[in-house]
Amino acid sequence: MIKVDVALVHYPVCNKNQEVIGSAVTNLDIHDIARASRTFGVDNYYIVTPYADQQVMVAEILDHWLYGHGARYNAKLKDALELVTICDDLTALYAMASQKSGTRPTVLATCASEQGTGWTYDEARSRIAAGEHVLLLFGTGWGLTAEVLQQVDVVLPPILGAGQYNHLSVRSAVAIILDRLLGNR
Amino acid sequence: MIKVDVALVHYPVCNKNQEVIGSAVTNLDIHDIARASRTFGVDNYYIVTPYADQQVMVAEILDHWLYGHGARYNAKLKDALELVTICDDLTALYAMASQKSGTRPTVLATCASEQGTGWTYDEARSRIAAGEHVLLLFGTGWGLTAEVLQQVDVVLPPILGAGQYNHLSVRSAVAIILDRLLGNR
Repeated sequence: MIKVDVALVHYPVCNKNQEVIGSAVTNLDIHDIARASRTFGVDNYYIVTPYADQQVMVAEILDHWLYGHGARYNAKLKDALELVTICDDLTALYAMASQKSGTRPTVLATCASEQGTGWTYDEARSRIAAGEHVLLLFGTGWGLTAEVLQQVDVVLPPILGAGQYNHLSVRSAVAIILDRLLGNR
Repeated sequence: MIKVDVALVHYPVCNKNQEVIGSAVTNLDIHDIARASRTFGVDNYYIVTPYADQQVMVAEILDHWLYGHGARYNAKLKDALELVTICDDLTALYAMASQKSGTRPTVLATCASEQGTGWTYDEARSRIAAGEHVLLLFGTGWGLTAEVLQQVDVVLPPILGAGQYNHLSVRSAVAIILDRLLGNR
Protein backbone atom coordinates (compact mmCIF):
# COMPACT_ATOMS: atom_id res chain seq x y z
CA MET A 1 0.00 0.00 0.00
CA ILE A 2 1.37 3.40 -0.95
CA LYS A 3 0.89 6.32 1.45
CA VAL A 4 0.96 9.63 -0.40
CA ASP A 5 -0.69 12.92 0.52
CA VAL A 6 -0.81 16.14 -1.53
CA ALA A 7 -1.08 19.67 -0.13
CA LEU A 8 -1.77 22.84 -2.10
CA VAL A 9 -0.44 25.78 -0.12
CA HIS A 10 -1.99 29.27 -0.44
CA TYR A 11 -0.05 30.81 2.47
CA PRO A 12 2.86 31.46 2.81
CA VAL A 13 3.77 31.74 -0.89
CA CYS A 14 5.62 34.27 -3.05
CA ASN A 15 4.18 36.79 -5.46
CA LYS A 16 6.00 37.74 -8.67
CA ASN A 17 8.21 40.17 -6.72
CA GLN A 18 9.21 37.45 -4.22
CA GLU A 19 7.17 39.03 -1.44
CA VAL A 20 5.33 36.71 0.97
CA ILE A 21 1.59 36.69 0.33
CA GLY A 22 -1.55 34.61 0.71
CA SER A 23 -3.12 33.63 -2.63
CA ALA A 24 -6.77 32.99 -3.45
CA VAL A 25 -8.10 29.46 -3.79
CA THR A 26 -9.35 28.80 -7.31
CA ASN A 27 -12.13 26.42 -8.23
CA LEU A 28 -10.14 24.65 -10.93
CA ASP A 29 -7.19 23.96 -8.62
CA ILE A 30 -9.58 22.07 -6.37
CA HIS A 31 -11.02 20.03 -9.25
CA ASP A 32 -7.96 19.30 -11.37
CA ILE A 33 -5.73 18.31 -8.49
CA ALA A 34 -8.43 16.19 -6.85
CA ARG A 35 -8.94 14.31 -10.14
CA ALA A 36 -5.21 13.76 -10.59
CA SER A 37 -4.91 12.69 -6.94
CA ARG A 38 -7.69 10.10 -7.32
CA THR A 39 -6.18 8.85 -10.58
CA PHE A 40 -2.79 8.21 -9.01
CA GLY A 41 -4.02 6.73 -5.72
CA VAL A 42 -3.28 9.67 -3.42
CA ASP A 43 -4.84 9.29 0.06
CA ASN A 44 -5.52 12.91 1.01
CA TYR A 45 -5.54 16.22 -0.81
CA TYR A 46 -5.15 19.10 1.66
CA ILE A 47 -6.04 22.66 0.69
CA VAL A 48 -4.08 24.95 3.00
CA THR A 49 -5.44 28.46 3.55
CA PRO A 50 -5.78 30.50 6.75
CA TYR A 51 -8.55 32.72 5.34
CA ALA A 52 -12.02 31.96 6.68
CA ASP A 53 -13.83 33.27 3.57
CA GLN A 54 -11.72 31.03 1.34
CA GLN A 55 -12.36 28.04 3.57
CA VAL A 56 -16.10 28.69 3.33
CA MET A 57 -15.88 28.89 -0.47
CA VAL A 58 -14.05 25.56 -0.64
CA ALA A 59 -16.58 23.98 1.72
CA GLU A 60 -19.46 25.21 -0.45
CA ILE A 61 -17.88 23.81 -3.62
CA LEU A 62 -17.27 20.48 -1.91
CA ASP A 63 -20.84 20.41 -0.59
CA HIS A 64 -22.24 20.87 -4.10
CA TRP A 65 -20.22 18.02 -5.60
CA LEU A 66 -20.33 15.63 -2.63
CA TYR A 67 -23.93 16.02 -1.44
CA GLY A 68 -25.80 18.40 -3.77
CA HIS A 69 -26.82 18.30 -7.42
CA GLY A 70 -23.20 17.77 -8.48
CA ALA A 71 -23.01 14.39 -6.76
CA ARG A 72 -25.82 13.06 -8.99
CA TYR A 73 -24.53 14.82 -12.11
CA ASN A 74 -20.95 13.51 -11.96
CA ALA A 75 -20.11 10.63 -9.63
CA LYS A 76 -16.49 10.52 -10.79
CA LEU A 77 -15.91 14.06 -9.65
CA LYS A 78 -17.51 13.13 -6.32
CA ASP A 79 -15.00 10.26 -6.00
CA ALA A 80 -12.16 12.72 -6.54
CA LEU A 81 -13.40 15.50 -4.26
CA GLU A 82 -13.86 13.07 -1.37
CA LEU A 83 -10.08 13.29 -0.99
CA VAL A 84 -10.15 16.99 -0.08
CA THR A 85 -9.55 18.29 3.45
CA ILE A 86 -9.33 22.00 4.31
CA CYS A 87 -6.46 22.98 6.55
CA ASP A 88 -5.46 26.26 8.31
CA ASP A 89 -1.68 26.27 8.00
CA LEU A 90 1.42 24.14 7.69
CA THR A 91 1.54 23.27 11.39
CA ALA A 92 -2.01 21.95 11.25
CA LEU A 93 -1.21 20.19 7.97
CA TYR A 94 1.73 18.27 9.39
CA ALA A 95 -0.29 17.29 12.46
CA MET A 96 -3.27 16.09 10.39
CA ALA A 97 -1.13 14.16 7.92
CA SER A 98 0.64 12.37 10.77
CA GLN A 99 -2.54 11.68 12.68
CA LYS A 100 -4.58 10.38 9.74
CA SER A 101 -2.03 7.81 8.68
CA GLY A 102 -0.35 7.10 12.01
CA THR A 103 3.12 7.98 10.71
CA ARG A 104 4.97 11.28 10.34
CA PRO A 105 5.32 11.82 6.59
CA THR A 106 8.52 12.70 4.78
CA VAL A 107 7.74 16.17 3.42
CA LEU A 108 8.69 16.67 -0.24
CA ALA A 109 8.43 20.17 -1.64
CA THR A 110 8.46 21.18 -5.26
CA CYS A 111 10.12 24.24 -6.72
CA ALA A 112 10.60 25.64 -10.22
CA SER A 113 14.29 26.32 -9.55
CA GLU A 114 17.04 23.86 -8.64
CA GLN A 115 17.66 23.72 -4.86
CA GLY A 116 20.26 20.96 -4.90
CA THR A 117 18.76 19.26 -1.85
CA GLY A 118 16.63 16.66 -3.51
CA TRP A 119 16.18 13.07 -4.34
CA THR A 120 15.72 12.13 -7.97
CA TYR A 121 12.17 11.28 -9.00
CA ASP A 122 13.22 7.64 -9.33
CA GLU A 123 14.47 7.60 -5.76
CA ALA A 124 11.23 9.14 -4.51
CA ARG A 125 9.24 6.64 -6.60
CA SER A 126 11.16 3.69 -5.12
CA ARG A 127 10.72 4.91 -1.56
CA ILE A 128 6.98 5.40 -2.07
CA ALA A 129 6.67 1.94 -3.61
CA ALA A 130 8.49 0.56 -0.56
CA GLY A 131 5.83 2.06 1.70
CA GLU A 132 7.37 5.34 2.89
CA HIS A 133 4.67 7.88 3.81
CA VAL A 134 5.21 11.00 1.69
CA LEU A 135 3.51 14.41 1.80
CA LEU A 136 3.94 16.47 -1.37
CA LEU A 137 3.85 20.25 -0.89
CA PHE A 138 2.90 22.50 -3.82
CA GLY A 139 2.90 26.29 -3.70
CA THR A 140 0.41 28.49 -5.55
CA GLY A 141 1.27 31.99 -6.81
CA TRP A 142 4.99 32.19 -7.57
CA GLY A 143 5.76 29.21 -5.34
CA LEU A 144 6.65 28.24 -1.78
CA THR A 145 8.74 30.67 0.27
CA ALA A 146 12.44 30.10 0.94
CA GLU A 147 11.64 29.57 4.62
CA VAL A 148 9.21 26.75 3.84
CA LEU A 149 11.66 25.14 1.43
CA GLN A 150 14.36 25.17 4.13
CA GLN A 151 12.12 23.36 6.60
CA VAL A 152 10.98 20.44 4.44
CA ASP A 153 12.82 17.11 4.22
CA VAL A 154 13.41 17.07 0.46
CA VAL A 155 13.05 19.48 -2.48
CA LEU A 156 12.37 17.67 -5.75
CA PRO A 157 14.20 18.82 -8.92
CA PRO A 158 12.44 21.26 -11.25
CA ILE A 159 10.51 19.90 -14.23
CA LEU A 160 12.16 20.91 -17.48
CA GLY A 161 11.89 20.19 -21.17
CA ALA A 162 14.56 21.05 -23.68
CA GLY A 163 15.21 24.56 -22.37
CA GLN A 164 15.11 26.50 -19.12
CA TYR A 165 11.53 27.80 -19.46
CA ASN A 166 9.46 26.14 -16.74
CA HIS A 167 6.57 28.43 -16.04
CA LEU A 168 4.07 25.59 -15.55
CA SER A 169 0.75 26.07 -13.81
CA VAL A 170 0.58 24.40 -10.41
CA ARG A 171 -2.14 22.14 -11.85
CA SER A 172 0.26 20.91 -14.55
CA ALA A 173 3.13 20.51 -12.06
CA VAL A 174 1.02 18.37 -9.74
CA ALA A 175 -0.13 16.16 -12.61
CA ILE A 176 3.40 15.61 -13.88
CA ILE A 177 4.92 14.93 -10.48
CA LEU A 178 2.19 12.45 -9.51
CA ASP A 179 2.75 10.68 -12.82
CA ARG A 180 6.51 10.56 -12.27
CA LEU A 181 6.06 9.16 -8.76
CA LEU A 182 3.01 6.94 -9.21
CA GLY A 183 2.05 6.56 -12.89
CA ASN A 184 1.99 3.36 -14.94
CA ARG A 185 4.95 2.99 -17.29
CA MET B 1 15.58 19.52 -33.38
CA ILE B 2 12.31 18.03 -32.22
CA LYS B 3 9.13 18.77 -34.17
CA VAL B 4 6.06 18.46 -31.98
CA ASP B 5 2.68 20.18 -32.30
CA VAL B 6 -0.25 20.05 -29.89
CA ALA B 7 -3.92 20.46 -30.83
CA LEU B 8 -6.83 20.89 -28.43
CA VAL B 9 -10.01 19.78 -30.19
CA HIS B 10 -13.42 21.25 -29.30
CA TYR B 11 -15.29 19.64 -32.19
CA PRO B 12 -15.99 16.79 -32.81
CA VAL B 13 -15.86 15.46 -29.25
CA CYS B 14 -18.13 13.35 -27.03
CA ASN B 15 -20.35 14.48 -24.17
CA LYS B 16 -20.94 12.28 -21.11
CA ASN B 17 -23.60 10.31 -23.02
CA GLN B 18 -21.20 9.62 -25.91
CA GLU B 19 -23.06 11.98 -28.23
CA VAL B 20 -21.03 14.09 -30.66
CA ILE B 21 -20.92 17.73 -29.59
CA GLY B 22 -18.85 20.90 -29.85
CA SER B 23 -17.47 22.07 -26.49
CA ALA B 24 -16.73 25.61 -25.32
CA VAL B 25 -13.17 26.92 -25.25
CA THR B 26 -12.10 27.75 -21.69
CA ASN B 27 -9.61 30.42 -20.74
CA LEU B 28 -7.55 28.15 -18.52
CA ASP B 29 -7.15 25.49 -21.22
CA ILE B 30 -5.52 28.15 -23.37
CA HIS B 31 -3.15 29.26 -20.61
CA ASP B 32 -2.20 25.98 -18.96
CA ILE B 33 -1.57 24.11 -22.18
CA ALA B 34 0.37 27.00 -23.72
CA ARG B 35 2.62 27.13 -20.66
CA ALA B 36 3.20 23.36 -20.72
CA SER B 37 3.83 23.52 -24.47
CA ARG B 38 6.47 26.23 -24.07
CA THR B 39 8.09 24.36 -21.17
CA PHE B 40 8.50 21.19 -23.22
CA GLY B 41 9.59 22.79 -26.48
CA VAL B 42 6.39 22.32 -28.50
CA ASP B 43 6.39 24.28 -31.79
CA ASN B 44 2.69 25.05 -32.22
CA TYR B 45 -0.39 24.83 -30.03
CA TYR B 46 -3.55 24.70 -32.17
CA ILE B 47 -6.96 25.45 -30.70
CA VAL B 48 -9.52 23.76 -32.92
CA THR B 49 -13.06 25.16 -32.91
CA PRO B 50 -15.45 25.87 -35.78
CA TYR B 51 -17.48 28.42 -33.81
CA ALA B 52 -16.86 32.04 -34.80
CA ASP B 53 -17.78 33.45 -31.38
CA GLN B 54 -15.31 31.12 -29.69
CA GLN B 55 -12.60 32.05 -32.18
CA VAL B 56 -13.19 35.72 -31.41
CA MET B 57 -12.94 35.06 -27.68
CA VAL B 58 -9.63 33.23 -28.11
CA ALA B 59 -8.32 36.04 -30.31
CA GLU B 60 -9.27 38.63 -27.69
CA ILE B 61 -7.52 36.70 -24.92
CA LEU B 62 -4.41 36.33 -27.07
CA ASP B 63 -4.48 40.02 -27.96
CA HIS B 64 -4.52 41.00 -24.28
CA TRP B 65 -1.52 38.83 -23.39
CA LEU B 66 0.50 39.30 -26.58
CA TYR B 67 0.00 43.00 -27.29
CA GLY B 68 -2.08 44.58 -24.49
CA HIS B 69 -1.54 45.18 -20.78
CA GLY B 70 -0.91 41.47 -20.20
CA ALA B 71 2.25 41.50 -22.33
CA ARG B 72 3.84 44.04 -19.96
CA TYR B 73 2.45 42.38 -16.82
CA ASN B 74 3.71 38.86 -17.54
CA ALA B 75 6.30 38.31 -20.28
CA LYS B 76 6.52 34.57 -19.57
CA LEU B 77 2.88 34.12 -20.35
CA LYS B 78 3.41 36.09 -23.56
CA ASP B 79 6.20 33.66 -24.51
CA ALA B 80 3.81 30.76 -24.03
CA LEU B 81 0.79 32.22 -25.79
CA GLU B 82 2.85 33.04 -28.88
CA LEU B 83 2.58 29.33 -29.67
CA VAL B 84 -1.21 29.49 -30.12
CA THR B 85 -2.93 29.29 -33.51
CA ILE B 86 -6.70 29.16 -33.95
CA CYS B 87 -7.98 26.56 -36.39
CA ASP B 88 -11.44 25.75 -37.85
CA ASP B 89 -11.44 21.98 -38.00
CA LEU B 90 -9.30 18.85 -38.31
CA THR B 91 -8.89 19.19 -42.07
CA ALA B 92 -7.52 22.71 -41.66
CA LEU B 93 -5.40 21.54 -38.73
CA TYR B 94 -3.68 18.80 -40.71
CA ALA B 95 -3.06 21.17 -43.61
CA MET B 96 -1.61 23.90 -41.36
CA ALA B 97 0.58 21.49 -39.41
CA SER B 98 2.01 20.08 -42.64
CA GLN B 99 2.50 23.47 -44.22
CA LYS B 100 4.15 25.16 -41.22
CA SER B 101 6.81 22.52 -40.79
CA GLY B 102 7.10 21.25 -44.36
CA THR B 103 6.36 17.65 -43.38
CA ARG B 104 3.13 15.74 -42.87
CA PRO B 105 3.04 14.93 -39.13
CA THR B 106 2.34 11.55 -37.62
CA VAL B 107 -0.94 12.14 -35.77
CA LEU B 108 -1.01 10.75 -32.22
CA ALA B 109 -4.32 10.82 -30.40
CA THR B 110 -4.89 10.37 -26.70
CA CYS B 111 -7.75 8.52 -25.11
CA ALA B 112 -8.75 7.62 -21.55
CA SER B 113 -9.54 4.03 -22.57
CA GLU B 114 -7.23 1.41 -24.07
CA GLN B 115 -7.52 1.25 -27.89
CA GLY B 116 -4.81 -1.32 -28.50
CA THR B 117 -3.47 0.54 -31.51
CA GLY B 118 -0.65 2.48 -29.91
CA TRP B 119 3.00 2.86 -29.48
CA THR B 120 4.36 2.89 -25.96
CA TYR B 121 5.35 6.30 -24.62
CA ASP B 122 9.00 5.24 -24.85
CA GLU B 123 8.60 4.44 -28.53
CA ALA B 124 6.95 7.79 -29.20
CA ARG B 125 9.68 9.53 -27.19
CA SER B 126 12.43 7.82 -29.21
CA ARG B 127 10.82 8.68 -32.53
CA ILE B 128 10.40 12.32 -31.53
CA ALA B 129 14.02 12.47 -30.38
CA ALA B 130 15.02 11.04 -33.77
CA GLY B 131 13.28 13.93 -35.53
CA GLU B 132 9.88 12.52 -36.48
CA HIS B 133 7.28 15.28 -36.76
CA VAL B 134 4.42 14.48 -34.38
CA LEU B 135 1.03 16.16 -33.89
CA LEU B 136 -0.64 15.34 -30.56
CA LEU B 137 -4.45 15.47 -30.58
CA PHE B 138 -6.33 16.05 -27.31
CA GLY B 139 -10.11 16.03 -27.00
CA THR B 140 -12.06 18.26 -24.62
CA GLY B 141 -15.40 17.25 -23.07
CA TRP B 142 -15.53 13.45 -22.71
CA GLY B 143 -12.86 12.96 -25.36
CA LEU B 144 -12.31 12.53 -29.10
CA THR B 145 -14.97 10.67 -31.09
CA ALA B 146 -14.51 7.07 -32.25
CA GLU B 147 -14.40 8.32 -35.85
CA VAL B 148 -11.49 10.65 -35.12
CA LEU B 149 -9.64 7.94 -33.22
CA GLN B 150 -10.00 5.59 -36.20
CA GLN B 151 -8.46 8.10 -38.58
CA VAL B 152 -5.30 8.99 -36.66
CA ASP B 153 -1.99 7.17 -37.04
CA VAL B 154 -1.53 6.14 -33.41
CA VAL B 155 -3.56 6.14 -30.19
CA LEU B 156 -1.38 6.44 -27.10
CA PRO B 157 -2.16 4.25 -24.06
CA PRO B 158 -4.29 5.71 -21.25
CA ILE B 159 -2.58 7.28 -18.25
CA LEU B 160 -3.21 5.25 -15.13
CA GLY B 161 -2.05 5.10 -11.55
CA ALA B 162 -2.65 2.15 -9.26
CA GLY B 163 -6.29 1.64 -10.25
CA GLN B 164 -8.61 2.10 -13.20
CA TYR B 165 -9.83 5.61 -12.28
CA ASN B 166 -8.47 7.98 -14.90
CA HIS B 167 -10.79 10.93 -15.00
CA LEU B 168 -8.02 13.49 -15.52
CA SER B 169 -8.69 17.00 -16.79
CA VAL B 170 -7.42 17.58 -20.32
CA ARG B 171 -4.98 20.11 -18.84
CA SER B 172 -3.47 17.42 -16.61
CA ALA B 173 -3.40 14.87 -19.44
CA VAL B 174 -1.52 17.25 -21.75
CA ALA B 175 1.02 18.08 -19.03
CA ILE B 176 1.68 14.42 -18.26
CA ILE B 177 1.95 13.31 -21.87
CA LEU B 178 4.33 16.16 -22.80
CA ASP B 179 6.47 15.23 -19.80
CA ARG B 180 6.50 11.55 -20.81
CA LEU B 181 7.48 12.41 -24.39
CA LEU B 182 9.75 15.41 -23.85
CA GLY B 183 10.56 15.93 -20.15
CA ASN B 184 13.97 15.78 -18.49
CA ARG B 185 14.57 12.56 -16.54
